Amino acid sequence: MEKLEQLYEGKAKKIYRTTDEQVVWISYKDSATAFNGEKKAEIQGKGRLNNEISTILFELLKEKGISSHFVKRISETEQLVKKVKILPIEVVIRNIAAGTLAKRLGIPEGQILPRTILEYYYKNDDLGDPLINEDHIDILELATKEQLQQISEQAFKINELLTSYFADKQVKLVDFKLEFGVDENGQLLLADEISPDTCRLWDAETNEKLDKDVFRRELGSLTDAYEKILKRLGGLSCTK
Amino acid sequence: MEKLEQLYEGKAKKIYRTTDEQVVWISYKDSATAFNGEKKAEIQGKGRLNNEISTILFELLKEKGISSHFVKRISETEQLVKKVKILPIEVVIRNIAAGTLAKRLGIPEGQILPRTILEYYYKNDDLGDPLINEDHIDILELATKEQLQQISEQAFKINELLTSYFADKQVKLVDFKLEFGVDENGQLLLADEISPDTCRLWDAETNEKLDKDVFRRELGSLTDAYEKILKRLGGLSCTK
Repeated sequence: MEKLEQLYEGKAKKIYRTTDEQVVWISYKDSATAFNGEKKAEIQGKGRLNNEISTILFELLKEKGISSHFVKRISETEQLVKKVKILPIEVVIRNIAAGTLAKRLGIPEGQILPRTILEYYYKNDDLGDPLINEDHIDILELATKEQLQQISEQAFKINELLTSYFADKQVKLVDFKLEFGVDENGQLLLADEISPDTCRLWDAETNEKLDKDVFRRELGSLTDAYEKILKRLGGLSCTK
Repeated sequence: MEKLEQLYEGKAKKIYRTTDEQVVWISYKDSATAFNGEKKAEIQGKGRLNNEISTILFELLKEKGISSHFVKRISETEQLVKKVKILPIEVVIRNIAAGTLAKRLGIPEGQILPRTILEYYYKNDDLGDPLINEDHIDILELATKEQLQQISEQAFKINELLTSYFADKQVKLVDFKLEFGVDENGQLLLADEISPDTCRLWDAETNEKLDKDVFRRELGSLTDAYEKILKRLGGLSCTK
């Protein structure tokens, strides 16, 4: 398979067409952004770390029966994935209060929620990715009711799998964001990435933040934090 | 029945205990507030107008089978209502894009929505009354699943009744906010008020705003607008 022209450049990844019409080539960038792109930096090694961590997590989920766009990792910073049309919805699962939930509802950060909750955000930079409900999704035609039902079921299942997996590695899965896409056959597939860019991950004992909050809040070295996660997941490319 | 001590003072109303334990005495104030209390004014006549308009609408809804807290209007600015514990949820029904919906989703104000939608907001001034979803309501224990189901059904039914009623008066019901309470028997009742403070009402032909947006956006005399509504509803106390 060959890499052809670039189709799209996002905040953290570039996507290229390939000689296989159903597969795209993803290159993870070394860019970090936060607060809807207001804060930006180039962080050497971030692309490699997210590519490897996301690969490990998508392979785990595949093993556990979750259909996703993931095909394979092909280099330190690149992977092949099935071409999908991404639904413009960010699906957020939360186990512990943090970030915008803590602010929105006035719940102290770190408080374990009485049960896991799901939120939908409209993936729209111009509008600042606002929280939306199922009626909003319906009138904007962002997804069908059947797709939402599937998304919600899968998101809770993925949470169970990842929470238990991370717990074994002494990491708390506080919350995370998923994106879903639809392939050319109309099948709904988990897409995008699962990495410390898209999950809040805290050390199980100390609550040390091992995710993008290190960058958002300037708590230290982002790559040190991501390397810690990769090491706990048994990744091979811990070059530090 | 006698009015006893004040139980509560809100932005637009005062509530007093009465000699009947199950009934409270509401006095509509002449205060107007907007933007979570940031903008305030005293507007003579507003209390009388809202008291009368809300009375007409609650009596209409009662006739149509909607259970509410409303007992009766007892003076120009006062009414008796059943004592309820208000659920801290603002229930918003929208037929046409306006206000925060237009901003949140980037839909032009005035665009008719493909279908009526419902939103829940957390009634909490300190947090700025944020949009919430059913999972948030669940973890905050703001209402039970059964109460939410009832609230949602009633809100859509009330919308049908009021939309058709206002249409006969050449008024578009753009959106409105409802509050619900629970009486001492655990019965869910429509509560609070229904007035141009809590509804967006536009002239059916000209789209002239006949609601609190006149105050929010300084579009003219608030009492002139509310008098127009009251007159169309056939109210008697049009003293202008």
